[in-house]
Amino acid sequence: MQAVDPDYDKRVRESFARQGAMAHIGAALRRVEPGLVEIDLPYRPELSQQHGFFHAGMVATVADSAGGYASYTLFPADSSVLTVEFKVNLIAPADGDCVRAVGQVIRSGRTLTVCELRAYVRKNGAETQCLHGMATVMCLAGRSDRGPAQAGK
Amino acid sequence: MQAVDPDYDKRVRESFARQGAMAHIGAALRRVEPGLVEIDLPYRPELSQQHGFFHAGMVATVADSAGGYASYTLFPADSSVLTVEFKVNLIAPADGDCVRAVGQVIRSGRTLTVCELRAYVRKNGAETQCLHGMATVMCLAGRSDRGPAQAGK
Amino acid sequence: MQAVDPDYDKRVRESFARQGAMAHIGAALRRVEPGLVEIDLPYRPELSQQHGFFHAGMVATVADSAGGYASYTLFPADSSVLTVEFKVNLIAPADGDCVRAVGQVIRSGRTLTVCELRAYVRKNGAETQCLHGMATVMCLAGRSDRGPAQAGK
Amino acid sequence: MQAVDPDYDKRVRESFARQGAMAHIGAALRRVEPGLVEIDLPYRPELSQQHGFFHAGMVATVADSAGGYASYTLFPADSSVLTVEFKVNLIAPADGDCVRAVGQVIRSGRTLTVCELRAYVRKNGAETQCLHGMATVMCLAGRSDRGPAQAGK
Repeated sequence: MQAVDPDYDKRVRESFARQGAMAHIGAALRRVEPGLVEIDLPYRPELSQQHGFFHAGMVATVADSAGGYASYTLFPADSSVLTVEFKVNLIAPADGDCVRAVGQVIRSGRTLTVCELRAYVRKNGAETQCLHGMATVMCLAGRSDRGPAQAGK
Repeated sequence: MQAVDPDYDKRVRESFARQGAMAHIGAALRRVEPGLVEIDLPYRPELSQQHGFFHAGMVATVADSAGGYASYTLFPADSSVLTVEFKVNLIAPADGDCVRAVGQVIRSGRTLTVCELRAYVRKNGAETQCLHGMATVMCLAGRSDRGPAQAGK
Repeated sequence: MQAVDPDYDKRVRESFARQGAMAHIGAALRRVEPGLVEIDLPYRPELSQQHGFFHAGMVATVADSAGGYASYTLFPADSSVLTVEFKVNLIAPADGDCVRAVGQVIRSGRTLTVCELRAYVRKNGAETQCLHGMATVMCLAGRSDRGPAQAGK
Repeated sequence: MQAVDPDYDKRVRESFARQGAMAHIGAALRRVEPGLVEIDLPYRPELSQQHGFFHAGMVATVADSAGGYASYTLFPADSSVLTVEFKVNLIAPADGDCVRAVGQVIRSGRTLTVCELRAYVRKNGAETQCLHGMATVMCLAGRSDRGPAQAGK
């Protein structure tokens, strides 16, 4: 896939850095390419559900962010990104020491972009897919990501 | 709806208290009834996306937990709860000082339970719905929620 | 809810009548109100799955149409309607002599509308909910529903 | 992927042949392999939406069936298959002379199987993906597909 904005990488990293939630849960950008973003989420007890594994919501959060930023790599410079909806199946317990979330653009339109979301959990050096999903993402053209988004999409 | 386990309230609150993620993001159980659970999530900058609003993943996390525990109120005492999948639409920016997530059982089966998920954001005393979704939740009978869940559902 | 086009009823009925699929499966508009559409689908063996019940795809088809047209009632006169995505849970076997699908708008935006989808199956005079879902629907302003829709949404 | 029942092909084809809906819309099994099923749906005006393209519900119907039967190839001989839920994005207008739906198993569990759904529309010899989705499918062990399914999953 081709990015229309040559500075997509810088734009994604700056936006990611403004997300308080990503810092709070300890997520880190791992890979930023046109139409593809990966995010790492190392384990800590503060991310757990009742059995000590990663909480499904935490895994879904990084998957959603990976999909939103994968879409954002393809947007024009002066635009903002909104998740319209996402759907995830938790296909295996997220039991391990690090989650890697992958967002990958399937179809990029002027207004709407559709992504595939996957997450893998690493344990004893081996990765198991623990989440599979999809997201619909909206491009708000002419509204810089640095200002507040408006309602009424 | 009717709970088969008279101690459903205690069982839900103990499981919730074991979720490190709920404490880390500052979520609190607000209401526990058969087939209905509400969770409050007060705003803090650590929960924000790039525009300073609540991150969609944080809102989805409490919505997912509300749906899982709403289902769990109806499960037998010696059981565990797993989210199979959830889907959420972010229908308005989560701009406000507190999110209230509601999980409500639509259909309760022996193995699978379907919930409606809603979240509302409060600003200047008024609530706006910011999320609408659904979840499919699984009952693992004969596996206490206190031990580790097994894969292979 | 309020329709901006006073002729919404006529506009919906004309569009419905142009859908070859609705006639082929025997579906009929039952109710058209601002933000709410109901469609009836009487049983015939040509709509069955392998056990003789209504095929899930047939029930989903009328639910999707009900959601699309519920959204369309709120659109301006000179517009077209596209389903962006839908998600349905089949919560009971669709075993009966008629399905009633209900599409109801939850949130109406300038570009995107979110609907709740429900379907009920009637047997021996009693209705059971057999489907619960959601749809995201897009308004293509300035593109009449009578002409072909364009790609590139 | 590996089928536990060596007669999976015959079992799938017999079940498909019992679906009145597949015959009524003119769908045909194209490919049956362990974990993968493809269905063809040639165009006819009886399958159209208001602009003359394939109706989204018809495309979703064959995609859902492809996912259900892809899952069913991996089930034991004496079992039945139920779609728990599916979610589809309509990513391009289904404008063409034939739809090819593909259901592919992502994860196969004892009770639940998760599939990816895709559909492609062929026009002037070229295929365009028009649908991307997911399905959660349930195995009812010990209940032959030839008898009626029971509620209460």
